Amino acid sequence: MRMLVVAPHADDEVLGVGGTIAKYIDKGYEVYVCVVTSGHPSMFPEDLLKKLRSEALNAHKFLGIKDTFFLDFPAVMLNEIPVHEVNIKVLDVINEVQPDIVFIPHYGDMHLDHYIVSQTAMVGLRPIREHKVLEIYSYETLSETEWNIPHTSNAFLPNTWIDISDYLDRKLEAMSIYSTQVKEFPHPRSLEAIKALAKLRGSTIGVSAAEAFSLIRRIVL
Amino acid sequence: MRMLVVAPHADDEVLGVGGTIAKYIDKGYEVYVCVVTSGHPSMFPEDLLKKLRSEALNAHKFLGIKDTFFLDFPAVMLNEIPVHEVNIKVLDVINEVQPDIVFIPHYGDMHLDHYIVSQTAMVGLRPIREHKVLEIYSYETLSETEWNIPHTSNAFLPNTWIDISDYLDRKLEAMSIYSTQVKEFPHPRSLEAIKALAKLRGSTIGVSAAEAFSLIRRIVL
Amino acid sequence: MRMLVVAPHADDEVLGVGGTIAKYIDKGYEVYVCVVTSGHPSMFPEDLLKKLRSEALNAHKFLGIKDTFFLDFPAVMLNEIPVHEVNIKVLDVINEVQPDIVFIPHYGDMHLDHYIVSQTAMVGLRPIREHKVLEIYSYETLSETEWNIPHTSNAFLPNTWIDISDYLDRKLEAMSIYSTQVKEFPHPRSLEAIKALAKLRGSTIGVSAAEAFSLIRRIVL
Amino acid sequence: MRMLVVAPHADDEVLGVGGTIAKYIDKGYEVYVCVVTSGHPSMFPEDLLKKLRSEALNAHKFLGIKDTFFLDFPAVMLNEIPVHEVNIKVLDVINEVQPDIVFIPHYGDMHLDHYIVSQTAMVGLRPIREHKVLEIYSYETLSETEWNIPHTSNAFLPNTWIDISDYLDRKLEAMSIYSTQVKEFPHPRSLEAIKALAKLRGSTIGVSAAEAFSLIRRIVL
Amino acid sequence: MRMLVVAPHADDEVLGVGGTIAKYIDKGYEVYVCVVTSGHPSMFPEDLLKKLRSEALNAHKFLGIKDTFFLDFPAVMLNEIPVHEVNIKVLDVINEVQPDIVFIPHYGDMHLDHYIVSQTAMVGLRPIREHKVLEIYSYETLSETEWNIPHTSNAFLPNTWIDISDYLDRKLEAMSIYSTQVKEFPHPRSLEAIKALAKLRGSTIGVSAAEAFSLIRRIVL
Amino acid sequence: MRMLVVAPHADDEVLGVGGTIAKYIDKGYEVYVCVVTSGHPSMFPEDLLKKLRSEALNAHKFLGIKDTFFLDFPAVMLNEIPVHEVNIKVLDVINEVQPDIVFIPHYGDMHLDHYIVSQTAMVGLRPIREHKVLEIYSYETLSETEWNIPHTSNAFLPNTWIDISDYLDRKLEAMSIYSTQVKEFPHPRSLEAIKALAKLRGSTIGVSAAEAFSLIRRIVL
Repeated sequence: MRMLVVAPHADDEVLGVGGTIAKYIDKGYEVYVCVVTSGHPSMFPEDLLKKLRSEALNAHKFLGIKDTFFLDFPAVMLNEIPVHEVNIKVLDVINEVQPDIVFIPHYGDMHLDHYIVSQTAMVGLRPIREHKVLEIYSYETLSETEWNIPHTSNAFLPNTWIDISDYLDRKLEAMSIYSTQVKEFPHPRSLEAIKALAKLRGSTIGVSAAEAFSLIRRIVL
Repeated sequence: MRMLVVAPHADDEVLGVGGTIAKYIDKGYEVYVCVVTSGHPSMFPEDLLKKLRSEALNAHKFLGIKDTFFLDFPAVMLNEIPVHEVNIKVLDVINEVQPDIVFIPHYGDMHLDHYIVSQTAMVGLRPIREHKVLEIYSYETLSETEWNIPHTSNAFLPNTWIDISDYLDRKLEAMSIYSTQVKEFPHPRSLEAIKALAKLRGSTIGVSAAEAFSLIRRIVL
Repeated sequence: MRMLVVAPHADDEVLGVGGTIAKYIDKGYEVYVCVVTSGHPSMFPEDLLKKLRSEALNAHKFLGIKDTFFLDFPAVMLNEIPVHEVNIKVLDVINEVQPDIVFIPHYGDMHLDHYIVSQTAMVGLRPIREHKVLEIYSYETLSETEWNIPHTSNAFLPNTWIDISDYLDRKLEAMSIYSTQVKEFPHPRSLEAIKALAKLRGSTIGVSAAEAFSLIRRIVL
Repeated sequence: MRMLVVAPHADDEVLGVGGTIAKYIDKGYEVYVCVVTSGHPSMFPEDLLKKLRSEALNAHKFLGIKDTFFLDFPAVMLNEIPVHEVNIKVLDVINEVQPDIVFIPHYGDMHLDHYIVSQTAMVGLRPIREHKVLEIYSYETLSETEWNIPHTSNAFLPNTWIDISDYLDRKLEAMSIYSTQVKEFPHPRSLEAIKALAKLRGSTIGVSAAEAFSLIRRIVL
Repeated sequence: MRMLVVAPHADDEVLGVGGTIAKYIDKGYEVYVCVVTSGHPSMFPEDLLKKLRSEALNAHKFLGIKDTFFLDFPAVMLNEIPVHEVNIKVLDVINEVQPDIVFIPHYGDMHLDHYIVSQTAMVGLRPIREHKVLEIYSYETLSETEWNIPHTSNAFLPNTWIDISDYLDRKLEAMSIYSTQVKEFPHPRSLEAIKALAKLRGSTIGVSAAEAFSLIRRIVL
Repeated sequence: MRMLVVAPHADDEVLGVGGTIAKYIDKGYEVYVCVVTSGHPSMFPEDLLKKLRSEALNAHKFLGIKDTFFLDFPAVMLNEIPVHEVNIKVLDVINEVQPDIVFIPHYGDMHLDHYIVSQTAMVGLRPIREHKVLEIYSYETLSETEWNIPHTSNAFLPNTWIDISDYLDRKLEAMSIYSTQVKEFPHPRSLEAIKALAKLRGSTIGVSAAEAFSLIRRIVL
């Protein structure tokens, strides 16, 4: 089985899917990550960008990611790029990976980049090709999903819980490799907040840690 | 794998899940049906009730259902029965079947019985027991799901499509065994309407016939 | 009575409203179509664009459309055009046609162009002018409306059904004139899928074929 | 044309539809009202009930109502009556009136009686009979619609505005006949609040007074 | 200031509002609790009911609750009680307490009792009395709020976060007094799950623990 | 206490929050207004723009606004400005004012500028800074909030009512200073429509005039 995680920014894939990535790699899946944006030099010091890139590669190596695609669109400025250019690059990755399972960010996250990446992924995932993607899920991202205007129109409503009791530690370690991104608790992008969310999601299904997702489309052939 | 379909009234299980039942039995699943109500003698002639019961049994035999549970609560009067009595009987069935996959009616269907059955099933399916149900779906029921007030609060939003291209014929045959329930097109509970829905659902995922469901809870252990 | 159908791309007007167009022309309505985009030469071969244009004109002639407005904004790139430019051109058409009834695409369709056209039409249709538009509806478009993320925020919830039993054949014939756009079943933009949807919508109101719409604003003077 | 207004309690028909009733009677429609509950003697003094009944009859006479059906189910206790009993009585009225247009309360109103009446009316209005009801709307009721928990699940979202500029006075007069029900402003069931709502709804479509409705089902044959 | 917490079952008030109760009592508020149901002897052993009652009283004493009202309606059977009887008893409590702030359960919780209590409280809280309740909130209840069908119609969407960093310990201690109700982690009604939720809610606003609520109605005079 | 009202266009702050501004200034609050756009010279005559600017200043002086920030982004063309540029300028204002309470437009308003301003304000208001904003509300804007497609995805659902009985006159006078913007009734941006809305909102909580808001985030420290 081949699995693809689409991340607007490096670290979203760990925040949202880190435990599941570790678990499914253990099961023998080939897991790929597509990082859509990187900081634009005009807004972020180049050193930081290099450091972030190397953190991503290290975290992915640690988790056992098969390959990472960096599309290098400019973060926070994604909506200034023509949509079809983003669409094409994301589609290229999908075509190359030919995934069975795809994880995309929640369209209702606060960050406009998350919305655009969600939308662009859905265009690439239209069920019109020979190769059929069997499962598409959206994931939650601490510090994005919970800060939007509270309204049903953007609500993240999980319907799938994946037990990561045996993989929470690896998720936390992968996250701590992102030393430029991880913050001190009580910031939501901290190890302690990540752990709290994992426990809470776990308790919903009676296991000690879980990641929760919202199924977008499953096809049973 | 063990699968349970909870039907408010005999024939809902075929309308909503008939093709999938046939497909999964072919795959080797044990499939059970729980029919929650039967017509109350005060409202329906006894002959009709007997006929309906025998149609259900024949349809289930035709499909290869392992066992059918008739709870015999009164149709159209389900809301007059104390909720905990319904809860207990439905829970008994769940405990006996120990299903891996459960299909329940859409809570937003127009018929009050569907709402109550959905609610009562969810109580029985709380993830607090040793045995974990891995997947719970709601299904759509022609002549119920589409006749409610059009509002997001009751909208049926499918996220799972099961290819029944090879099983549509068996679904239609099972439905025609329900001779007291099947109507002439253009009634929605007619073979032609069922076929139209199957084709439409199929076209969404690029196959010639499908049944569509809304995932309520999936647990990946 | 004057009726205007706003289509993001040529063929959406037939997919969504084809039967109703035929029916209302029979009733004596003057029906106009506004096609907002056309393929951009940078993305589509010019031959194809010419062919598509002539298909549109032929389909409209076949249906008896009074006049077609081609705004020629670039398809798939509509969000790169300043919104007020699109607004002004759409408003010009509305002002020229002075319609009593308007059909616009569903804002929640997957294609960004559909969302933009819906929004821009609503700006032009603000009830602030002397001439009052009496009815505004959104229509569903196979291969767009059903492929978006399943969420109440984009759900198409029809509340108006127009019987097209006597006009389904003309809708299908109009669609088959769009030979560059029509696909083989089980693609949703195929004649067989269109027929299945028409039957399903018909069965909801007890007729053999219907088109379903969601009323946006009706004014009874 | 025949029009039926279903009111949970006497005065709801005037609060929600009073101006439209007057307007459509002027247009030549036959308008009927079905009042589902009356106060139960155990909860309200009999004098009051008699007075309320006579107010209803006088208000209806003033408006030109063709006939009023009093079902006399107990107010505030409607949920203790078996649903099918309410269903049958409401269906009887529908069958007798054979209406073309029906107005029902908003299912999301705060008062449980409104919810039940909405639901029971929808059962009676399933499009399965020879006689087809062409339009079903829900209306808003001051002091019910705005007091529920603010949530999209019960939101009243109007899509139809009927100009009652020439009929607001008659609506207000009809309401003042209900002397036991009308309150002093700033109570929402006061003449001044009714006027404010009518002006607000009117301003949305550019007329000086309107009533707003949410279309539930329209069939165009 | 006077505050009232309405709890369907003893322990809901601590699960949902325990930290805030402690905090506001520290601020000098008078806090009252209304426990709507108690287990019915037919379903629960009498010993257990006595024990639960004494736990409630102890927990309330520990927190500094001014007074507790036990309405003693039967748990799990609340929907069999005539609604107006529940309404009256809840209203009596509101009238006696004359609260400024009220906390009620989330109407969308899975347990039918929660829905009924929410609804009945809203009837009693209609803003028609001399005494005006200034703030009404709904609270979340672990093991109820997260187990319902995932749908926007019942989604709990918090918009108010109360910092309980200094009161989490007291909340946990109050909960552990409910020894018959508290479970072992990973059950959601365990101390560890309560702590995880408090941390998560805290992280959203940058404090180490919080309780989250959804504002239903605030009046600023 | 310091309060900030973010207005997409000059006059939105009065339409939505005018009475509350007057009331809170009376209470001793310092109130600031941030007007995000001004008409672009290419679309509006310069005279008009000057006049509108001076009306804004006069209205604000009349109300007692402490300071007004004009960001001078181009109206109706806001979506053509890079989002991060708008974000930065709005954030600068927030940082300068350090508000306790913020009012922003409803994200679901029809005008794209309102949506963008809502979104950009939420980015600036992420709870990650030392200074914590205690309350964020969205306000309704006549002629914007009610003209969008009626759908739960954009519904304005108020949960906070502020009594402006003693301040409605000042709101109306402030609005009439905007002589270029105020229209004749029945236009929704007329004094009579504003009064009708204020009365209606007042009647909901039993006072003679109110403004209604939807709480987005409240933090109680």
